[in-house]
Amino acid sequence: MSDINQFLEEAAWLVNAELDRLIPAEGRPPQQLRDAIRWSLFAGGKRLRPALMLAAGRAFGVADEKVMRTAAAVEMIHTYSLIHDDLPSMDDDDLRRGRETCHRKYGEATAILAGDALQALAFQTIAEDAHNSPETKMRLISGLGQAAACMVVGQQLDLEAEGRELTIEEIENIHINKTGALIAFSTEAGAIIAEAEASEFEGLSRFGEKIGLLFQVMDDLLDVTQSTADLGKTAGKDAASEKATYPSSLGLEGTRDFASQVYEHAIASLMEVKADTSLLMQIARFLLERKA
Amino acid sequence: MSDINQFLEEAAWLVNAELDRLIPAEGRPPQQLRDAIRWSLFAGGKRLRPALMLAAGRAFGVADEKVMRTAAAVEMIHTYSLIHDDLPSMDDDDLRRGRETCHRKYGEATAILAGDALQALAFQTIAEDAHNSPETKMRLISGLGQAAACMVVGQQLDLEAEGRELTIEEIENIHINKTGALIAFSTEAGAIIAEAEASEFEGLSRFGEKIGLLFQVMDDLLDVTQSTADLGKTAGKDAASEKATYPSSLGLEGTRDFASQVYEHAIASLMEVKADTSLLMQIARFLLERKA
Repeated sequence: MSDINQFLEEAAWLVNAELDRLIPAEGRPPQQLRDAIRWSLFAGGKRLRPALMLAAGRAFGVADEKVMRTAAAVEMIHTYSLIHDDLPSMDDDDLRRGRETCHRKYGEATAILAGDALQALAFQTIAEDAHNSPETKMRLISGLGQAAACMVVGQQLDLEAEGRELTIEEIENIHINKTGALIAFSTEAGAIIAEAEASEFEGLSRFGEKIGLLFQVMDDLLDVTQSTADLGKTAGKDAASEKATYPSSLGLEGTRDFASQVYEHAIASLMEVKADTSLLMQIARFLLERKA
Repeated sequence: MSDINQFLEEAAWLVNAELDRLIPAEGRPPQQLRDAIRWSLFAGGKRLRPALMLAAGRAFGVADEKVMRTAAAVEMIHTYSLIHDDLPSMDDDDLRRGRETCHRKYGEATAILAGDALQALAFQTIAEDAHNSPETKMRLISGLGQAAACMVVGQQLDLEAEGRELTIEEIENIHINKTGALIAFSTEAGAIIAEAEASEFEGLSRFGEKIGLLFQVMDDLLDVTQSTADLGKTAGKDAASEKATYPSSLGLEGTRDFASQVYEHAIASLMEVKADTSLLMQIARFLLERKA
């Protein structure tokens, strides 16, 4: 197994253990709500955001335990957004990560509430993190709040765009908000927790933005080129819903070229960062080459 | 106009001005999302929670400006919960505060997103409040996060209870979570911001719990005794949905007696608080006597 796969597995294991501690299988009722939250939280997600945060923290020599709670919080926000985006009135999706979506399994009301609870718990988790100073936690909550608001903006723009032809700039604006902001926050958080210099923070922030874009470009590409079984979610959905994507705008070859460019820009933004960013660079490479 | 009505009007004016600054009518698109948020946020709510927080702060001599951002955040959380509770898959309500509910006016997807955005903004608003120390803001966010999670739990329990006969303890447990927790946080926040002693905080916390219960008991009572026009929301809805309420369990007279008892307990919990709690007591009286 390559180094990067080993690291991604380790990061996933660490954040899963933290999430399991924060939201255990048994506890305060109502059990149905707890089950619904865990159904989506432990659906086998790749934990890319926690991995980026851990890698960014390690780049600055920060102990993993200072990062884990915020990493769990980011995954809670990510999961809540997936639950709500899948709802019948939104993207109306039945399948996510290879199994039923939350509302298909637990009903629409409980799915909405599971998402709502995850968002509240995310902010509470950071506020109650004993490993970081109040100042650091304030910056983290402010950043996470901004990212969460951006995600809502991105989803709204995405809904408004359906069936309409978009320019590449409009597509990019949707993605910057919908997925880019939280991915960028994930790398920024490593620098915030490390109390890194402003210039280092800026480098990590730009890297995160590019990585978010790369992730989305590849997602669009895989939606066209891979099968439902490979993806664990409904393939070909973008075309079916006439959603604007990179392949629909740039073609397959053009999209691959664009992904390579974005990857190069991501790497370039780390050039002036003094910390050891080799792990972050490997994650970028992994995203460029991923098949699912 | 009585003193208490004047104070409630002043509190509403102050929090409305703060909310208008935080979420102005014009700004970053998408405009539809902004309009939906403001539609529900400025629907003429009584601003009970901000009023309680201001009154609790003033009891300890805290300047209003130290309270206003958290007061606005609490109203954002309250409004988001109303938007989501009104959704078709939840309570399916068409009317709220005398006008169309958010999803009736803007569609279900945008209503869900408006609620989601309000929750994120609430936590971000406290994190970015320049008037309080990082330590104070941490306690506020932790408390608000807990209250927001309780609200979701209460709504889930409420949904699971429909069509089933509940004991008075079960009814109370639903209300403690669904409305009590945020009202209790509103009075607690005054003590947190004042950095009051633990015993003072406890008194305010117990008062808030009782006030939350009083509010709900009166709400159930008014649902039976008042008209839709008086309430600004659909009257008689609890009976129509066979929802367990205080009147259905204790009868009208029994419910009025219970409300008086809860009021007395609320007042009693302020007895050992050294701060000047006269304004809080007047709010309790106002809630006991309210007609809409």
